[in-house]
Amino acid sequence: MENLLSHITTPIDLRKLSESQLPQVANELREFIIDIVSQKEGHLGASLGVIELTVALHYVFDTPNDLLVWDVGHQAYGHKILTERREIFHKYREIDGVSGFPKRSESVYDTFGVGHSSTSISAALGMAIASKINGDIEKQHIAVIGDASIASGMAFEGLNHAGVTDANLLVILNDNAMGIDPSVGALKDYLTAVKEGKNPKENNIIKSLNFDYSGPIDGHDLPKLLSELKRLRNIKGPKFLHIITTKGKGLSYAEENQLQFHAPGKFDKLTGKILKPENENLAPKFQDVFGHTLVELATENKKIVGITPAMPSGSSLKYMMEAFPDRAFDVGIAEQHAVTLAAGMATQGLTVFCNIYSTFLQRAYDQVIHDVAIQNLPVIFCLDRAGFVGEDGATHHGLFDIAYMNCIPNMLIYAPLNEIDLRNILYTSSLGLKHPIAIRYPRGKGEIIDWKQPFSKIEIGKIQTLQEGNKIAILSTGTIGNNVSKAIANTGKSENYSHFHVGWIKPLDIEKLESIFANHSTIITVEEGTINGGLGSIINTFATQNKYKNEIINRGVTDTFIEHGTVKQLFELTHLDTISLTQLFIETNHD
Amino acid sequence: MENLLSHITTPIDLRKLSESQLPQVANELREFIIDIVSQKEGHLGASLGVIELTVALHYVFDTPNDLLVWDVGHQAYGHKILTERREIFHKYREIDGVSGFPKRSESVYDTFGVGHSSTSISAALGMAIASKINGDIEKQHIAVIGDASIASGMAFEGLNHAGVTDANLLVILNDNAMGIDPSVGALKDYLTAVKEGKNPKENNIIKSLNFDYSGPIDGHDLPKLLSELKRLRNIKGPKFLHIITTKGKGLSYAEENQLQFHAPGKFDKLTGKILKPENENLAPKFQDVFGHTLVELATENKKIVGITPAMPSGSSLKYMMEAFPDRAFDVGIAEQHAVTLAAGMATQGLTVFCNIYSTFLQRAYDQVIHDVAIQNLPVIFCLDRAGFVGEDGATHHGLFDIAYMNCIPNMLIYAPLNEIDLRNILYTSSLGLKHPIAIRYPRGKGEIIDWKQPFSKIEIGKIQTLQEGNKIAILSTGTIGNNVSKAIANTGKSENYSHFHVGWIKPLDIEKLESIFANHSTIITVEEGTINGGLGSIINTFATQNKYKNEIINRGVTDTFIEHGTVKQLFELTHLDTISLTQLFIETNHD
Repeated sequence: MENLLSHITTPIDLRKLSESQLPQVANELREFIIDIVSQKEGHLGASLGVIELTVALHYVFDTPNDLLVWDVGHQAYGHKILTERREIFHKYREIDGVSGFPKRSESVYDTFGVGHSSTSISAALGMAIASKINGDIEKQHIAVIGDASIASGMAFEGLNHAGVTDANLLVILNDNAMGIDPSVGALKDYLTAVKEGKNPKENNIIKSLNFDYSGPIDGHDLPKLLSELKRLRNIKGPKFLHIITTKGKGLSYAEENQLQFHAPGKFDKLTGKILKPENENLAPKFQDVFGHTLVELATENKKIVGITPAMPSGSSLKYMMEAFPDRAFDVGIAEQHAVTLAAGMATQGLTVFCNIYSTFLQRAYDQVIHDVAIQNLPVIFCLDRAGFVGEDGATHHGLFDIAYMNCIPNMLIYAPLNEIDLRNILYTSSLGLKHPIAIRYPRGKGEIIDWKQPFSKIEIGKIQTLQEGNKIAILSTGTIGNNVSKAIANTGKSENYSHFHVGWIKPLDIEKLESIFANHSTIITVEEGTINGGLGSIINTFATQNKYKNEIINRGVTDTFIEHGTVKQLFELTHLDTISLTQLFIETNHD
Repeated sequence: MENLLSHITTPIDLRKLSESQLPQVANELREFIIDIVSQKEGHLGASLGVIELTVALHYVFDTPNDLLVWDVGHQAYGHKILTERREIFHKYREIDGVSGFPKRSESVYDTFGVGHSSTSISAALGMAIASKINGDIEKQHIAVIGDASIASGMAFEGLNHAGVTDANLLVILNDNAMGIDPSVGALKDYLTAVKEGKNPKENNIIKSLNFDYSGPIDGHDLPKLLSELKRLRNIKGPKFLHIITTKGKGLSYAEENQLQFHAPGKFDKLTGKILKPENENLAPKFQDVFGHTLVELATENKKIVGITPAMPSGSSLKYMMEAFPDRAFDVGIAEQHAVTLAAGMATQGLTVFCNIYSTFLQRAYDQVIHDVAIQNLPVIFCLDRAGFVGEDGATHHGLFDIAYMNCIPNMLIYAPLNEIDLRNILYTSSLGLKHPIAIRYPRGKGEIIDWKQPFSKIEIGKIQTLQEGNKIAILSTGTIGNNVSKAIANTGKSENYSHFHVGWIKPLDIEKLESIFANHSTIITVEEGTINGGLGSIINTFATQNKYKNEIINRGVTDTFIEHGTVKQLFELTHLDTISLTQLFIETNHD
């Protein structure tokens, strides 16, 4: 049988086929994705689950004239392949290659950049209202959103507004009972009841919000999808289609182990065996240091609780959820709720570890200020994935947290140097603090295999001296300090450099800084984050306000968004890699 | 008849009365509030609407052991008066007086500090889960939330989580179809249908989220409230009571004009006549400059749209809603949705003015970064109530926006000096920008009566010289520059001071700054916002990175939350008043 996919460059080619050929296209698309994703890391399950939907949408609707918004975007591989990117798709998530998410600058078919969840309804509604204002009343606007994402408050806000408009908006709920981890919450239970045909048989919540509701239908049944989308295409106003799909559809091992095959890394596509990376670093992930350490602490202290908004696996809070299910909470994609829930618990004397990725805490910024910091409640924020996350790119890097947290009164901020330091700051925080604290640490692995050392308390607000030198002081915060240490060694003139670990970004160690400024001609700040508002700015302000005239050099991320690539590549791009730092240190060591 | 209220210091006194005496208490409490609020500014309507509920809650539940959380807190005057604050209540919203909102540091009865909406369910659920962990299974946890607040996404997240717990949580929906302005959205329409006895007769949305639902009942019928609360007190798990109330209840003119009597200012309590402030400043509110100017611009440019999350009156977007109802949108208390809706509209070529109070934009921080800035969509954010808001206090001041916006790549930031400057930056923005912009301006009135001048385009990124001097350069941003001008005049040595209006906080006018630093020995930055991450930090970093050794002094808000008081008092507290600035300028002018 002739391959059809290879003749499809744009959806126009797809629309030339007969409906009876579309199942073949779906099969080929599925194979294409599996072939490529099995050979490199990427998101698999979500895209396999919407193959039929993707084909049907681009067949029925007049994309890119009709506007299609994918929520989150993990599921958009099929969409990318059908829209001009088949031949370059194998370079997805590589630096200068196709992004792992829809991205406006990449294609006219990517109508809205995504990455964080639950934005699609608001964005598509905005487009739909704009089309009306622009006089284009035929244009269709479609948001495809999963059941985990639609449970987030922002999606509800979008539905609540859409329901009182006459906008040409079609919301498609892709219900597979999974986010990255299994979906949670009352809405999920309700949707499951709807699916299972239990009363209420129709989705009354959605109908109550004034949507024209249809479903649930089988999202893998192409003829049904086609006929339903064609019907909906001709209905004006807000409409809602509920489809049931299976994450990982068409690959038995992926269907059976949906969590693992969300983003499996390389695997054998015949057996489903996950392939271990070559030359694997045996050090633990920082996430596991967090997860296991929390279990240790919670075993001793019954007041300790843990909260994650939908990232039990990613954050490794799962270990605590397994060990102490009554004291560890996955609240779903609900960062706002997670933070204020933590605040409520803290008022009753609990020691709350609230683990949220740096980039996602942006979703709960007001709650951090208004519910935690103003009341000075000692919530312990664990800001996972601070710094570069690598392949997920601009939407997911955690580069702003120092800046947006440092301006908040009462907040402590600490960035550990390594696994042991992370472990000890978790321990220190568990002993009871007088303020909230944000602990920022990176995605992935460190370098210390033997990390499980006896706990040691970290003194609050003290700079740690890693090396004493006679001329240039390097102030680094967090794990980037390890690049700094190597770079100092590389200069061959270690004696000229002092190196200080500014774990405590807030409060600053004023006394130590005074001595550092007094004893070094030049100060270099190094951070894996934005210099604007970050450690660099903080040290500059310290110097200015205290009338120090030392030369100060700030190294970190300048005022620009950083795209996707490996963390190593992004270090090079931002001159935070060991070689660039070495060069900087040597250049600075003039007479 | 003997006055009962005067014998009530705590709810324990209330509980000594018979149920038949409670209507009298309610009447006295209502009179007490009207007496005081008519004589000074404050929030009236919301508290009058929950008088019966307040009495019933403190009568039935064992406060403060049972934990009561008021959402937003505008309605908590009755609560404060019944809980140890009757005698000091007349000093509410005054500096060092009772806060206008519940506040933990003020009373053990104020279990959770509020001000921003929709936090109560999450907070009370956190308390309820904590009580279980603490082994206290009898304790009750009550969230009282209005229909405008429950439509916000965060409240939905709280309900969605609560529904799958067995926490002792009672959510009371105080449904009066009003926030500050009338409520909007599909949920509001649905609740109205429920109230009016239309099908569905019961509140299925809430039941679908697994709550034990009861209502709707008349929230002014004390016997009914008492019996229902007593029944609910003995039911375990999450429960939901829907009560119908009237905002401003018991005061005919307040019931008839609920928007005006939300916070009426001083009024004649017999006639309801609003009393004009003495010595009224005839200059317009900045809000009205925004509102009227937007109408002017939108009349010429059909691509202009306006968005407000629930503040059409407060922001004065109401003028555009009246003039162009199809192009101006009140989306309810939904800041996240508002921002991403704006982004969606901007992708389709509209010129979107998204007006959000500085403090509330914290609610949509991620949407600003992820949906607007990463995609570099030229959304125009109008940050109303930047700087001190006065009597609303710590929860409402807009002091962090420079810091949290400046670290975002692609973002422009402008703070106008006065009404005309605001008008011109709105005009300039409407002509089309290459980037998103945040325009920050204060609550209330400026000083220019004759503000409606012909439009003049503001050059992007240029510092404006207000005065040339020979020694000290003062860089101010925003309307605080007017205090600076007066203070310079007060020194009697104006010739020593240059004064620059740094309207553009981002991008910085590098060339001009270089000349300023070259030509002045001392630089003073002045801003109505936090120095941490604010203009002060930005200028410090400019100086450091460009190796300037000038003395630099930063004046602004230091790293602390600022409580309530008049704006004048808060200027004095933070040394931003004219006298303090004069003193600073004189002191700095040494030889």
